[in-house]
Amino acid sequence: MKIVSVDPFYLRMPKITLAADGTQDTLLVRIQTDEGIEGWGECDASPLVSIAVYCCPMSHGNIINIRTSLIGETIDSPEDILRLSEKVLRNALDIQQIHHAYSGAEIALWDIIGKKLDKPIYRLLAEMTDTSETSHPKLPYASVLFGDTPENTYQIAKGLQNKGYQAAKFGWGPIGKHGEDNDVSLVRAAREGMGNDNQIMIDAGVVWGTDYNTAFERALAFSEFSPTWLEEPLAPDAIDAYSSLKSKKPTVSIAAGEGSSTYRMAEDIIVNGGIDYVQIDAGRIGGIYPSFQVRLLAEQTGIQYVNHTFKSHLSLAAALHVFVTNPDFNLLEYPAAGSELSECIVKNPFQIHTDGLVRITDGPGLGVEIDTNRIKPYFTPVSIQADSETVFDQPSL
Amino acid sequence: MKIVSVDPFYLRMPKITLAADGTQDTLLVRIQTDEGIEGWGECDASPLVSIAVYCCPMSHGNIINIRTSLIGETIDSPEDILRLSEKVLRNALDIQQIHHAYSGAEIALWDIIGKKLDKPIYRLLAEMTDTSETSHPKLPYASVLFGDTPENTYQIAKGLQNKGYQAAKFGWGPIGKHGEDNDVSLVRAAREGMGNDNQIMIDAGVVWGTDYNTAFERALAFSEFSPTWLEEPLAPDAIDAYSSLKSKKPTVSIAAGEGSSTYRMAEDIIVNGGIDYVQIDAGRIGGIYPSFQVRLLAEQTGIQYVNHTFKSHLSLAAALHVFVTNPDFNLLEYPAAGSELSECIVKNPFQIHTDGLVRITDGPGLGVEIDTNRIKPYFTPVSIQADSETVFDQPSL
Repeated sequence: MKIVSVDPFYLRMPKITLAADGTQDTLLVRIQTDEGIEGWGECDASPLVSIAVYCCPMSHGNIINIRTSLIGETIDSPEDILRLSEKVLRNALDIQQIHHAYSGAEIALWDIIGKKLDKPIYRLLAEMTDTSETSHPKLPYASVLFGDTPENTYQIAKGLQNKGYQAAKFGWGPIGKHGEDNDVSLVRAAREGMGNDNQIMIDAGVVWGTDYNTAFERALAFSEFSPTWLEEPLAPDAIDAYSSLKSKKPTVSIAAGEGSSTYRMAEDIIVNGGIDYVQIDAGRIGGIYPSFQVRLLAEQTGIQYVNHTFKSHLSLAAALHVFVTNPDFNLLEYPAAGSELSECIVKNPFQIHTDGLVRITDGPGLGVEIDTNRIKPYFTPVSIQADSETVFDQPSL
Repeated sequence: MKIVSVDPFYLRMPKITLAADGTQDTLLVRIQTDEGIEGWGECDASPLVSIAVYCCPMSHGNIINIRTSLIGETIDSPEDILRLSEKVLRNALDIQQIHHAYSGAEIALWDIIGKKLDKPIYRLLAEMTDTSETSHPKLPYASVLFGDTPENTYQIAKGLQNKGYQAAKFGWGPIGKHGEDNDVSLVRAAREGMGNDNQIMIDAGVVWGTDYNTAFERALAFSEFSPTWLEEPLAPDAIDAYSSLKSKKPTVSIAAGEGSSTYRMAEDIIVNGGIDYVQIDAGRIGGIYPSFQVRLLAEQTGIQYVNHTFKSHLSLAAALHVFVTNPDFNLLEYPAAGSELSECIVKNPFQIHTDGLVRITDGPGLGVEIDTNRIKPYFTPVSIQADSETVFDQPSL
């Protein structure tokens, strides 16, 4: 097959707020082939900045856009994806945004090859790496923002418990901003709302920067509520601070890694930062294959791999294929309070079964179908001109 | 003072080729204040992708563009620059391109504060960090591409020797692409053209990826021509491969780091990669201050700091202020075969004195003046629309 089109689509809600809610907009990428097979992917990244990476004029041999690298290329096998990824990344050596932007295209290429070979992506990955082909159910944890107050947080947690969630993560918002007492009240409220039989996770949203002492004190203060982990207490690239935090032996596990936009960043925070859970977003790190490489590294180093997903179930599908064959990595970040936009992107979202678990579908490719009609109202066509040249002209959805 | 405008300007040559020549286009950033002081900076990055970071619509609290973060802010001191940098980077936590794009603005902010306080930037840095305020001359090395053949390379080297260069770096083009014999012939030609009394450096342009064995063999083969260093034999983030290469104890020094788009990337390749020379581009890593932090780290770890500069003398000025006060870091990458565009950006480029050295000027700020009239023919106005909204409307130059 030949790639005939590579098109990014910017979708957004009518109103965008400052909340750390990644579902307010998104960038979908559609790739079409001359055999009529099309694949889709989603980036967790700035849509406009990423669109520019699909179309930017060449600066020299190290700044060449994604469309130029992909259109006209042959693609028939998983090996072709690796070859094309290498080409895209090499051509964009000096474009910092390349991994964020390319993630959507890489996922779309896997979707295409899965459809072509009539196999789910996780099986293609297993065949390629001689690893297990058996999928395992995951325990979804609801991923939500803290309420503004402990009371609001309690209500949110209670609501999730009533919906049957056995695990929930609370993050961002007020945490770390009003002192230890308030932080503890927030975590207590999350625990009380969810009850003692369920798991809670705490996401500090990088609030303590490089201050590993405060991060350690909070980990200590939170430990009586037995959170599964304390997430991103520090800045994403504060590797030395993570190492210092871990050397103080906090009694709560430390999770981080969503900011990894390259494999090396993930490797760095695992090997040199010493974290316990690595959280990877296939929509940022360059797609499914680099995420899978991090999963393999997590297996080798004996830490836990978990997805970072705060977009639609298209992203959730990409995330699942990466680690669904490892039964020990049993938690799944499951966006539970997304925007209307994020909830209408796929026709067949992943349901939580009556046992409280999520299972991957065995459909070809990603196994999800895009609802182009329902997303149309959110479509934000972009046009870019440089001098008299049209650099990006938006295709229709 | 208040910041009243933050404007990126895309400039390019009429014809752009695949050559690894970073001077074919550029992105300048101008910042103006309400006191009439204006500063300039330059990014070594994709102009269009970086412009998008100045204007992209907000996605949530972690994707906020540079203009939004800066316009209306107060700026009167070097400390204000650090405060604003922290704000910009925090607001753009999820924009991978932020460091490439912000570099130009950060440099412009230093230019403004230097003009306001009537001091060159290197003195402001010295005062801030309690380090030496004395500037020292640098030995410029001509930075050129290899010729397509050993004969062409010899002619290029001879030409540089005739112009009086005491050092020259040859890079990219054919090296690594046609086997060891050709590589050795290229390096021999460079050495013969420059003569035995001058320094040569070899830039392999990341050609061996993660293959540290080949990199080691080439270092061995090149050692008879005594290059000052072998640069970027491996991919920028192949940290383990750099470490493996260095553990084989090559007899030629290893240089790398130009791909560092964060302080951590530089720290990683220094501490974990074990390189001998770290090469930092202030136009990529987020500006002058993070470059200065890497310089301090180089001093602490006992390796050499050197600039990476393949743009105009605006970038060269920013580069010089970072390390001009350290006499041990005595080499200066000096673009010697730039485009017409890159040679007309500043009115007062850095000349090579009769002793073959380059000295910083003691003018306020960067100490260079932009030639807005001469660059106008290269100006490429950009316009970006999202839906019915004008996201970026180009100001005039």
